[in-house]
Amino acid sequence: MSRQSRRRSEKQQIDWHLPSTSSTGSAYHMGTELFILTYGTLVAQLCEDCEKDEDINKVLDKMGHNIGTRLVEDFLARSNITQCRNSYETAEVIAKVAFKMYLGVTPRVTFWNQAGDDCSLFLEKNPLRGYVEIPEKHSNLLYSNMICGILRGALKMVRLQVDIQLLHDSVNDDKVTEIRMKLMRRHKAVRTVEKEQKHPVGT
Amino acid sequence: MSRQSRRRSEKQQIDWHLPSTSSTGSAYHMGTELFILTYGTLVAQLCEDCEKDEDINKVLDKMGHNIGTRLVEDFLARSNITQCRNSYETAEVIAKVAFKMYLGVTPRVTFWNQAGDDCSLFLEKNPLRGYVEIPEKHSNLLYSNMICGILRGALKMVRLQVDIQLLHDSVNDDKVTEIRMKLMRRHKAVRTVEKEQKHPVGT
Repeated sequence: MSRQSRRRSEKQQIDWHLPSTSSTGSAYHMGTELFILTYGTLVAQLCEDCEKDEDINKVLDKMGHNIGTRLVEDFLARSNITQCRNSYETAEVIAKVAFKMYLGVTPRVTFWNQAGDDCSLFLEKNPLRGYVEIPEKHSNLLYSNMICGILRGALKMVRLQVDIQLLHDSVNDDKVTEIRMKLMRRHKAVRTVEKEQKHPVGT
Repeated sequence: MSRQSRRRSEKQQIDWHLPSTSSTGSAYHMGTELFILTYGTLVAQLCEDCEKDEDINKVLDKMGHNIGTRLVEDFLARSNITQCRNSYETAEVIAKVAFKMYLGVTPRVTFWNQAGDDCSLFLEKNPLRGYVEIPEKHSNLLYSNMICGILRGALKMVRLQVDIQLLHDSVNDDKVTEIRMKLMRRHKAVRTVEKEQKHPVGT
């Protein structure tokens, strides 16, 4: 057997493939590590670029908003969800479908106010926290703030104006991550999500 | 029925959940859009920070290397792969397991050299390409260059020294993305991947 044909024979012995998984949440979690590490790299870059944590928080929110306006199309296509009838349904869809789909976790929706338009999303385990250690000098950094921007941007595209704040972030040694979300009102003008929307880089 | 109990009743009508999926590749693809958009945001930030495309390419490679050294632990844990016996197996594992796991695609491994240590990974469809439109002024930008860094960093942690270059990138109007990979030799010193390795941000 020649060297080359031996190599081919060795090559054919094992048919490498992705390990089979269940169709439960664990499958969705598989790709998140690359996202988590890339997100950490992005925040680290902003820490180099910005002097104040408050500026980093603003940039993260703005970036998230930009991402959310684009991600919503993918979300609507994959989830087959058309319209929510009230704030409760909207919050449930965000927690049980959107978070699970993109971050592999399901936050607890709680602390509704009397008017039923203001609630908290509690993340017992923040997936973005995975590999991160924030230096003490960044004590005011809201590490996961991009999530707020993404929600704001995505909801804007389905004509929902929201006020979203990261109240507690487990990165800053808080036990849980709390996102406070106030669903305010529908935008009057209908914004169309263009199918072939592109993401201009560096403009 | 009071207003509040009516709301609760409405809330209970639908049990929102993630749509069921098969255990095939499509499931792994579900989380990639958020990664792709976040990656685009990172590259856009670097376009603001760096004057030359060549500098952006270097930073992307360096960031990727950093990510790869951490991602390898997750990869080994999920894939249950211990050791590859030769370059062919290594390339197959990278293409069929690693790329599929994190990017939802499987590149074609081809163009092996005579010595069997140099091959090309062809991506007919580069998932990072999704939402991106590169302005003309960034004609030398290797948009997907972080992939090369990730592979170099991850392989270094399993004691494989590689030379990886992005030859064609579909972002730059090439038809396919080609990653040329030369598997050179095993590092002499064994690098241990620490289980609780943290990712310092902004240091």
